[in-house]
Amino acid sequence: MATAQKPITLNGVAVSELFSTIDAVKATPSIAKFKFRIRNQWEDGSRNHSTVTSLTGANQEFSHPVPFRLEADEPTILLGKDMAANPVPTLLHALASCLTTSMVYHASARGIQINQIESTFEGDLDLRGFLNLDPQIRKGYQGIRVNFRISADVSDDRLQEIVQLGTGHSPVYDSLTNGVPVSVTAERL
Amino acid sequence: MATAQKPITLNGVAVSELFSTIDAVKATPSIAKFKFRIRNQWEDGSRNHSTVTSLTGANQEFSHPVPFRLEADEPTILLGKDMAANPVPTLLHALASCLTTSMVYHASARGIQINQIESTFEGDLDLRGFLNLDPQIRKGYQGIRVNFRISADVSDDRLQEIVQLGTGHSPVYDSLTNGVPVSVTAERL
Repeated sequence: MATAQKPITLNGVAVSELFSTIDAVKATPSIAKFKFRIRNQWEDGSRNHSTVTSLTGANQEFSHPVPFRLEADEPTILLGKDMAANPVPTLLHALASCLTTSMVYHASARGIQINQIESTFEGDLDLRGFLNLDPQIRKGYQGIRVNFRISADVSDDRLQEIVQLGTGHSPVYDSLTNGVPVSVTAERL
Repeated sequence: MATAQKPITLNGVAVSELFSTIDAVKATPSIAKFKFRIRNQWEDGSRNHSTVTSLTGANQEFSHPVPFRLEADEPTILLGKDMAANPVPTLLHALASCLTTSMVYHASARGIQINQIESTFEGDLDLRGFLNLDPQIRKGYQGIRVNFRISADVSDDRLQEIVQLGTGHSPVYDSLTNGVPVSVTAERL
């Protein structure tokens, strides 16, 4: 009688499922194509929110059990009501969460146990760009500084490698550092 | 006796304050320099969260009344527990909210009244990038499609101009389409 193999989990990541996914994608590359989507609704002034309901992947449509609602506002210094995070720190959150998850998944696949990860992200923005006061100043972030603090029983070199597993694989890091083509259409509501 | 001028608000945006801000930045350009920041904490597996506590701008530090907590997880198909939006749609939310707010602020400054804005954002991601299965396939989004639906009493040309006020001024749109330098350091916790 065959013995069922116990699934291996490390750092909370189902490593055996991760390897099964890799095998499945190798066998059927089309299942690797994903589409992520949101819907946004303007409320008033600086306030709007997005709804994350479903995604397409592995040739299927997946609905989240409950749609996620992501809010946006601006701080009062930027003429908002300060009821939610504004878009630019939310971009930092997308980057931080993607780097962290990429790091944890790829470290787990390599059998590296991680005890703790904390990080800080800070970006510089000169409002003269947004306000059209100087064409030399970009509208977006001029630069972002990231610092990771990691607890793991590994050498110093290995610690740096863990971080590179994040920067080397993160979809948001790649999107943000290398840029993404964005096509925009508009119609009357 | 001087009559106090009534502040003008359009689309929920305090337009008179917006013009005061522009005048203040013209007089003292250093107040345009902002720093946005977050702190991220890994929880387990695919779960982590960021905290948005404060920002620096106009040579001052501003604390949010309550720190905003932004969650991250992965859908079950990506080995998560599906408790929160994952990083890649969160990136779309950052883009959507920034485009919408940029559009509303700049349209308001031009005296254009907007009744309603809805939008959808969809991005293509091929998991073979993240899984290191094909070096030709990027880790990040291959492309993002945006569709705005706007209700405003304006001509068709003017409707397209409103959208261009978004793409032409949004810090997240500029960051994502043109890329941002990100520096990463790591130390032991």
